[in-house]
Amino acid sequence: MKQAMTRLSIPGRGRGLQEITATLSNWVAGAGIGDGMLTAFIPHTSATLLIQENADPDVAHDLEAFFDRVAPEGAGYRHENEGPDDMPAHIRSALTQSDIQIPVMQGRLQLGTWQGVFLFEHRIEPRRRDVVLHLLGT
Amino acid sequence: MKQAMTRLSIPGRGRGLQEITATLSNWVAGAGIGDGMLTAFIPHTSATLLIQENADPDVAHDLEAFFDRVAPEGAGYRHENEGPDDMPAHIRSALTQSDIQIPVMQGRLQLGTWQGVFLFEHRIEPRRRDVVLHLLGT
Amino acid sequence: MKQAMTRLSIPGRGRGLQEITATLSNWVAGAGIGDGMLTAFIPHTSATLLIQENADPDVAHDLEAFFDRVAPEGAGYRHENEGPDDMPAHIRSALTQSDIQIPVMQGRLQLGTWQGVFLFEHRIEPRRRDVVLHLLGT
Repeated sequence: MKQAMTRLSIPGRGRGLQEITATLSNWVAGAGIGDGMLTAFIPHTSATLLIQENADPDVAHDLEAFFDRVAPEGAGYRHENEGPDDMPAHIRSALTQSDIQIPVMQGRLQLGTWQGVFLFEHRIEPRRRDVVLHLLGT
Repeated sequence: MKQAMTRLSIPGRGRGLQEITATLSNWVAGAGIGDGMLTAFIPHTSATLLIQENADPDVAHDLEAFFDRVAPEGAGYRHENEGPDDMPAHIRSALTQSDIQIPVMQGRLQLGTWQGVFLFEHRIEPRRRDVVLHLLGT
Repeated sequence: MKQAMTRLSIPGRGRGLQEITATLSNWVAGAGIGDGMLTAFIPHTSATLLIQENADPDVAHDLEAFFDRVAPEGAGYRHENEGPDDMPAHIRSALTQSDIQIPVMQGRLQLGTWQGVFLFEHRIEPRRRDVVLHLLGT
């Protein structure tokens, strides 16, 4: 049993879903661990990780519209000093996840046919984001 | 330290919560690992995993009503080509989880008294769903 | 590779966010494992775990107001026998998480600058809550 860890730094594209599946798959394939568990963790409070359908780009659009509707700007928040998109970003973070786990077999992520892993940026402006990857197995 | 992995195939019952606690407990009990961590992962984009109260079936009914209210069909989605229940299913998936972790001691899941593990189907029609289980420990 | 496990018992303060980052950090620092993965699991159905901004207390206030708005009391629930705040608590639990993972390096949680770990109590009255911690690594 062994483990591997790395920290990615991803140039962001602003609010919305940005697929990072290939980056994760490539790191796992080269980590020298065949069977085990991948954990991805994002050390930010206004960007999260999401496993979602990656076939139809309309899904990302509709998800973005949903979160904008459920956590709109200007909804009477007290926390306004970091900009009108900051408190909605924290709510969107609370509703999604800072960490995800994906089983690995023979060096391959056991994602379903339609699943992709996304960096979900909640702030409007692009920001560079870190993602920590940890793989444990044999 | 060792690990075990399996893939379950669960006959679905259509939209709503379906308890799978006993299936997980039984597999863990026979996996030959006493203390460690169970990860359950679902490789689908319109069904997720949920830890919830399993005592009163009204809870499942009220949860279903809540998600139907917060992510209704026909809310002006672009992604409509896979049916009116598909985009709501992706939203419900984003709000819940594709992976859960449960500590294991002496071969038993350390769930609380009222906790059960549920397969949460978001599509109306019944579908067979896979769940990958991974147990790591001693 | 080794693992450590403990069960915390935390005196609650009633509905809202209660930071437990220092408790987790201290236990990890003394667990004798430098690099690995921490899992925190809460064995309750009306309290969850949340990674959130811990700098501005207004964020906790706004989050509480958000969840009160999205899952209000008295919204026609069937499950009312455990009190008007119980079904909202189960909905809030479904929207957040019973388990979180945080990478550990050199005995330190790899949380971001603004991230804290919170016990998120969903019932109005204070309750004592358990949290199970599991650390695996070298």
